[in-house]
Amino acid sequence: MSVSELPEVRVDGERLLGELDDLSRISDAPHPAVTRVLFTPTELVAREFVRGIVTRAGLALRDDPAGNLFARWQGTEPDLPAVATGSHIDAIPFAGRFDGTVGALGGIEALRALREAGFRPRRSLEAIVFTSEEPTRFGVGCLGSRALSGAIEPERLAELTDADGETFDRARQAAGCSGALADARLPRDAYRCFLELHIEQGPILEQERQAVGVVTAIAAPSTLRITVRGDGGHAGAVLMAERRDALTAAAEIVLGVERVARASEGADGVATTGILEVHPGASNSIPSRVRLTVDARHIDRDARDALVREIRSQARSVASRRQVTVRIETLHSDDPTACGPEVVQAVERAAAELGLSCRRMVSRAYHDASFMARVCPVGMIFVPSAGGHSHRPEEFTSSEDIVNGVRVLAGALARLASD
Amino acid sequence: MSVSELPEVRVDGERLLGELDDLSRISDAPHPAVTRVLFTPTELVAREFVRGIVTRAGLALRDDPAGNLFARWQGTEPDLPAVATGSHIDAIPFAGRFDGTVGALGGIEALRALREAGFRPRRSLEAIVFTSEEPTRFGVGCLGSRALSGAIEPERLAELTDADGETFDRARQAAGCSGALADARLPRDAYRCFLELHIEQGPILEQERQAVGVVTAIAAPSTLRITVRGDGGHAGAVLMAERRDALTAAAEIVLGVERVARASEGADGVATTGILEVHPGASNSIPSRVRLTVDARHIDRDARDALVREIRSQARSVASRRQVTVRIETLHSDDPTACGPEVVQAVERAAAELGLSCRRMVSRAYHDASFMARVCPVGMIFVPSAGGHSHRPEEFTSSEDIVNGVRVLAGALARLASD
Repeated sequence: MSVSELPEVRVDGERLLGELDDLSRISDAPHPAVTRVLFTPTELVAREFVRGIVTRAGLALRDDPAGNLFARWQGTEPDLPAVATGSHIDAIPFAGRFDGTVGALGGIEALRALREAGFRPRRSLEAIVFTSEEPTRFGVGCLGSRALSGAIEPERLAELTDADGETFDRARQAAGCSGALADARLPRDAYRCFLELHIEQGPILEQERQAVGVVTAIAAPSTLRITVRGDGGHAGAVLMAERRDALTAAAEIVLGVERVARASEGADGVATTGILEVHPGASNSIPSRVRLTVDARHIDRDARDALVREIRSQARSVASRRQVTVRIETLHSDDPTACGPEVVQAVERAAAELGLSCRRMVSRAYHDASFMARVCPVGMIFVPSAGGHSHRPEEFTSSEDIVNGVRVLAGALARLASD
Repeated sequence: MSVSELPEVRVDGERLLGELDDLSRISDAPHPAVTRVLFTPTELVAREFVRGIVTRAGLALRDDPAGNLFARWQGTEPDLPAVATGSHIDAIPFAGRFDGTVGALGGIEALRALREAGFRPRRSLEAIVFTSEEPTRFGVGCLGSRALSGAIEPERLAELTDADGETFDRARQAAGCSGALADARLPRDAYRCFLELHIEQGPILEQERQAVGVVTAIAAPSTLRITVRGDGGHAGAVLMAERRDALTAAAEIVLGVERVARASEGADGVATTGILEVHPGASNSIPSRVRLTVDARHIDRDARDALVREIRSQARSVASRRQVTVRIETLHSDDPTACGPEVVQAVERAAAELGLSCRRMVSRAYHDASFMARVCPVGMIFVPSAGGHSHRPEEFTSSEDIVNGVRVLAGALARLASD
């Protein structure tokens, strides 16, 4: 069947939106907030929920030693590299309903809709649910796509450690993921390309009233962990002049991170202190140690590296002026990603055939697509985020926008699978 | 028996130091750090440990509905108001071994030593172990002495709530404290005076090579809780100019607290941000809410009030400039305490009789004596703190200094109980 013969695809919005709502209630935070952290009991329930959808859709289910889930629809030429889509279902604390889930469940819905429309793919189609796109538990994000693409060594992945001292390796085994982590790495030519549907998480599509965005590049993220050590003591008895307070030093670093990002090239960099933990954390005790994370991004790698250098340098200068020590660790530092022109074009053509507006854009957030780019050409479809909100309970994308995104995804996958 | 007939009192340093070491190991932090938070299983073990010491010493043990423990040695005229000593055994997270415990176990040792020396008190002597001098669990310190002295209403005490939503009333009942909280209030004329032994928690006695300090006044403490609310969002997708980051605003407040205290009257005020909690606390999420506590103290009440006003005003100005909101609650605001001249003199005479150096000083830290001052004249004996360190594992007072403190305490108690 050639693309011109592709029958009209009907995305079942009611079914998909019902599933998204069901999934949002599998959460450790009260609805509509979503907290779903890797390999917690709640996240395991969410995985089982997805398994049910895949099985009922008649897709072949498999999982790998890193906990990635694959739903496969075999093509008429199953030895050809497959076409893949997918996203994630884990969520940071007090997040929203749509980050990751729109692409994870939307990818499965795209395959269902194509099947129900009578389409028969030449290349096999796969929908992937990636392990831990969010860095919440182990400090590094995109663990599943890093493992698939060889972007992390299996030994390093195994030894990543959470706040309770549990390693990734023990956690995944306790969650029922067996086999050697090295075997999660994709064989050469597993995929022809990878296309991820995701909410924008920024305000541009809504402001410009575009139905979808097609991503041409993904920003380069880097995360630092900074540990500040000063002198503790009694909050009453130690005079101000005698203090080496780790928290007042950390406060200067937090403000420095903000100042440096505001001054970054093209005012286009962002940097965020998202975690800050105070030790000992008593109202009448001078803080002796503070640990914080800094997430720094820029679409240009050199500009991002300059931003990180500047943050390191100002932290060291605060430490020297305040006579505290800082230890700075790089948790990860990744490259920006250029999307595959053929994938970008397939998305643009699918949108055009459906009469939907579409604009090219960059993604400031990073995604599993960033790592899949190491093994095949990638692309991303963005749908509007109301108010640009994401990573918070107010995260919202209209049902129409979600359905439109899945329609474009289905059209592009059909085109790519026929190629 | 008149004071002149007082036999030589021998404090058993080995016994007392062994008990202090034993108690330091009843801790939720690894030795030598001490974490012993009100009504936790570990704190209940520590209470039982003290009960054993009191019982073996032949003192009468009673406890009150607020969980205060009393060890009583009846005098020859038991109807006279008693003379009391005591301190606390709870400890903030990662504290040291001697804060509170020197006065709690030292008070019992003083009574034991006087008994063993054949002293017979005219007034009854009591050693008190006060409930929760530290504010760790319920945000307000000196809960036991506040309840005894009527400085807190029983209804308010009952409803104080910890971070897990547990009330003081439920927590004390679960810990086995029964009866109405109102009954913890001391009857009129229960005590002739109260004298607390404590480590200095500052560097002066060590620097000046004084054996003991006698406290003439205790600084006025106040604690604020400030909640900053901004806008959360994705750390990659929201540009710097569009942010209302609760943590960068809180960082400015933290630095403002420090600046205001440094500029306080006589450079004599102190202010500390000891707790700072970030929500949602994910590395890739812009903080939407920060909660912090500010502990502000000054020996002069007007100067302390001015300090607190200045801290409130700068927090509001940060909020307005950064378009975030702040909510400021006063957790407590207490008065400075003047010690009783007769108690101060009894300490000075006891030190002189023992040939020990003694200097008058103020206490910047507050203590249960601050609240006992509402019901009777109070005094405090300080012993040196190495390096002035306290509220940290390095807290240290030499065995000789501890024994000297208990000798002075015993001498002063004997004098006061004979009066």
